[in-house]
Amino acid sequence: MGTALAAALIKAGHPTTVWNRTESRTGPLVAQGATPAATARDAVTAGGPVIVCLTTNDDVRALLEPEADALTGRTVVNLTNGTPGQARELADWAAAHGVTYIDGGIMAVPQMIATPGAYILYSGTDEAAFEVHRPTLAALADTKWVGKDPGLAALYDLSLLTGMYGMVMGVAQANALIRSEGIPAREFAPLLTGWIVAMTRGLVAGGAEALDSGRHLTDVSNLAMNKAAFPNFTRAFAEQGLRTELFEPLQDLLDRAVERGHGADGLSRLTLLLEKD
Amino acid sequence: MGTALAAALIKAGHPTTVWNRTESRTGPLVAQGATPAATARDAVTAGGPVIVCLTTNDDVRALLEPEADALTGRTVVNLTNGTPGQARELADWAAAHGVTYIDGGIMAVPQMIATPGAYILYSGTDEAAFEVHRPTLAALADTKWVGKDPGLAALYDLSLLTGMYGMVMGVAQANALIRSEGIPAREFAPLLTGWIVAMTRGLVAGGAEALDSGRHLTDVSNLAMNKAAFPNFTRAFAEQGLRTELFEPLQDLLDRAVERGHGADGLSRLTLLLEKD
Ligand SMILES: NC(=O)c1ccc[n+]([C@@H]2O[C@H](COP(=O)([O-])OP(=O)(O)OC[C@H]3O[C@@H](n4cnc5c(N)ncnc54)[C@H](OP(=O)(O)O)[C@@H]3O)[C@@H](O)[C@H]2O)c1
Ligand SMILES: NC(=O)c1ccc[n+]([C@@H]2O[C@H](COP(=O)([O-])OP(=O)(O)OC[C@H]3O[C@@H](n4cnc5c(N)ncnc54)[C@H](OP(=O)(O)O)[C@@H]3O)[C@@H](O)[C@H]2O)c1
Repeated sequence: MGTALAAALIKAGHPTTVWNRTESRTGPLVAQGATPAATARDAVTAGGPVIVCLTTNDDVRALLEPEADALTGRTVVNLTNGTPGQARELADWAAAHGVTYIDGGIMAVPQMIATPGAYILYSGTDEAAFEVHRPTLAALADTKWVGKDPGLAALYDLSLLTGMYGMVMGVAQANALIRSEGIPAREFAPLLTGWIVAMTRGLVAGGAEALDSGRHLTDVSNLAMNKAAFPNFTRAFAEQGLRTELFEPLQDLLDRAVERGHGADGLSRLTLLLEKD
Repeated sequence: MGTALAAALIKAGHPTTVWNRTESRTGPLVAQGATPAATARDAVTAGGPVIVCLTTNDDVRALLEPEADALTGRTVVNLTNGTPGQARELADWAAAHGVTYIDGGIMAVPQMIATPGAYILYSGTDEAAFEVHRPTLAALADTKWVGKDPGLAALYDLSLLTGMYGMVMGVAQANALIRSEGIPAREFAPLLTGWIVAMTRGLVAGGAEALDSGRHLTDVSNLAMNKAAFPNFTRAFAEQGLRTELFEPLQDLLDRAVERGHGADGLSRLTLLLEKD
């Protein structure tokens, strides 16, 4: 990801200094016009925002902490994935050393950097600093500012990925079911895409209304109906020789919803049942 | 659902006879122009295809078995949800009594019957019989014939719903995460919809190619990366005071995938890991 980000900056004409723990990996970027830095300290003092993208925020901490004095008065844009709590800790550490900290969440794979549709979520206490660097950051992907709590970019990022991972579970099990009768996945794909897209549009918008208003009652497809229909799935998976474990927790959640008297509510109610008692 | 189906037939000008166990429920349909039948036998002998939509296929069996002699030579279109196995058993029973059996899966809620976008999947041994009744059935929703194995309509139906239920888990947990910081769901909804829709388009089409070709290797976002990134989610859910059970089986599946040497493969590989060993 670091390579894709630096390449986009170079391509957009921004003077770019690159550093990587394994030095050889910066070779292609230097060939594209980047200035190599011999040490992390040389990189962070080269000027402009310091864009960091490592495996985890623990790595970021380990790398930046020894450079605290060199970073004072500069801006760090951290595009490493982590939790909101980690981003807030890094922001606190930065504030204690006079460093401006912007956290970011990349909603793209490296191949999508600097292509239409890709965007990066940003948050941090200093929105004005973000606005200063926004034109530079726009070379990477569309910029979406989500707020002054430094944890928000990570929160939005993880929430979006969570939505996607749910879909991934559904698609994996759906394809397993369809393939259990020898139907090519390609034949089923247009129906599956069309159905999930249509249902996502309706459920996300309708669910948001219900959650914000606190009114979950529905006359469309309530939790009692879903609970009653659900054993059909697990039974069909088993009949077709498939594992059922990805969907068992949803049956339990539907059961719990009905047990607690929410049978007449819509699926939006499930969100509230994920909060710890 | 039965009410919505009968109303659509009446509205389209098809002479329609209605019967329901609780007789009073057919009142509104009779007011719209339906002919009431005093008994199930009167209904099945009224002429035209016999369209059945009850709670479960066990109910269908219990209702139709005593009418076997009256059904001989007629066509039953069963729009009750069930498993492929149940549909095949009903088809066998029908064949043994000289009854033409068409199984159907309704991809719509009652409010969507006879509106654009709604469709019904059909399958059965006698495709010619389906073609005879197709113009009538088209009054209910678009018709999609999926094949001569009577279990296929149920298989496609359950597979589509499975894909949707995965998305439902993802959306529930994503909204729980975003709400844990007091962000209104409505503010997040457009991003969530856009992201899931874009990812569904890419993952379903790409996954189908991989599954049909048997080539799961990827240079985009492999299982090892997903396995490594996943604890971020469960940690973030827990940090935000949320339950994690919906996503634990996915972590286990990712772990299993990598353990078995599939770390360099894409998410499409997960489908194969849902097959029982
Ligand atoms: N790839 C994606 O699709 C994608 C998408 C969105 C977000 N992200 C996020 O972007 C970040 C980077 O992902 P990636 O795909 O680029 O991972 P990667 O290919 O594993 O690269 C990790 C980078 O971090 C460096 N690194 C790790 N630990 C370090 C340490 N302690 N000190 C110094 N450098 C260290 C590595 O240096 P070496 O070369 O020396 O090992 C390498 O440059 C992750 O947080 C990831 O979640 C990735
Ligand atoms: N509603 C939806 O959103 C939806 C969407 C797609 C598919 N479906 C499927 O459509 C089917 C019907 O759903 P629904 O929503 O209409 O359910 P419902 O409102 O519970 O209606 C069930 C109907 O079945 C009758 N019934 C049940 N057991 C019977 C028996 N042993 N003998 C005779 N009649 C019996 C009921 O009669 P009484 O009036 O006497 O109780 C009622 O008319 C289900 O298989 C469902 O999965 C529903």
